[in-house]
Amino acid sequence: MTHITTGVEYALHCLLFLVDTDEEQPLASARDLAELQGVPADFVAKLFTKLQKAGIVAATEGVRGGFRLARAPERISVLDIVEAIDGQKPLFECRNIRSQCALFEGEAPGWATRGVCSIHAVMLEAEARIRDVMASHTLASLATQVASKTPPEYLRKTLGWLADRAPARTVRAPR
Amino acid sequence: MTHITTGVEYALHCLLFLVDTDEEQPLASARDLAELQGVPADFVAKLFTKLQKAGIVAATEGVRGGFRLARAPERISVLDIVEAIDGQKPLFECRNIRSQCALFEGEAPGWATRGVCSIHAVMLEAEARIRDVMASHTLASLATQVASKTPPEYLRKTLGWLADRAPARTVRAPR
Repeated sequence: MTHITTGVEYALHCLLFLVDTDEEQPLASARDLAELQGVPADFVAKLFTKLQKAGIVAATEGVRGGFRLARAPERISVLDIVEAIDGQKPLFECRNIRSQCALFEGEAPGWATRGVCSIHAVMLEAEARIRDVMASHTLASLATQVASKTPPEYLRKTLGWLADRAPARTVRAPR
Repeated sequence: MTHITTGVEYALHCLLFLVDTDEEQPLASARDLAELQGVPADFVAKLFTKLQKAGIVAATEGVRGGFRLARAPERISVLDIVEAIDGQKPLFECRNIRSQCALFEGEAPGWATRGVCSIHAVMLEAEARIRDVMASHTLASLATQVASKTPPEYLRKTLGWLADRAPARTVRAPR
């Protein structure tokens, strides 16, 4: 498993489809977004539970219910999404080997464990740089980049595809 | 498992003990370095095989044999060591979800897969920053930092401890 998981990838792709929806557009369900992209629906449903808990999406219940962004896409960073899905996973776990030297005979002196281990410090610096990069990109900036590479009719078609799913969900609902 | 493994941590700690050795000092074996630090000797031996393959350490055979750095510690970056031990592991593996949209009906148009996916690009940028950080630190710079926190007699004692092991290895060798 890579450090940044497939869950983050699926979540980001799904969320990009929620950036341009307006009041008129029926809300998309996790299943709709999964099927639009050919990814496993059950897995995407779990991702949306995490995104909702993290306050990134909000759900509306009912047959026309579904998900929308809980705040402006300019205020949702890639870091927010990574942490919602993967948690605050460290890049490196320091085992504090410096305290185990045979010369210490089981009792490390104060100087040996004071402050952050110099090796750990390098890893923490690397981790901070990853976080900087991820915090500097937002759903809005990603959506702008994607839109610049995408024919305008594609967005219209995907929103149409999602809207067409809402009545289907109505039909399946108990009366 | 974290992205940067325990193997990297053990390797870095072991290599720091090889920075200040001189011509007079008997070479340390992987087992000596492992036992000095209370870490598993078999695992450390495997790490040294990787470090040797990567041209970071050189081995001298024989009962007084052992490892030394294969080049100046200023020319061994943390990145060199990470790649020797963990390989060039990506932070993120792009599954090219953008090509799977249901609207494409199995055949993604050229624009959908041209260039790097915008999400993948963010991850590649993060990965490049990690590599920058790791390339900017060397065994020499780490050793200087460690030395600044360590009483001078500690280094002398560890070199003495390692030197004392060499005769023991001689005794164990077949005559």
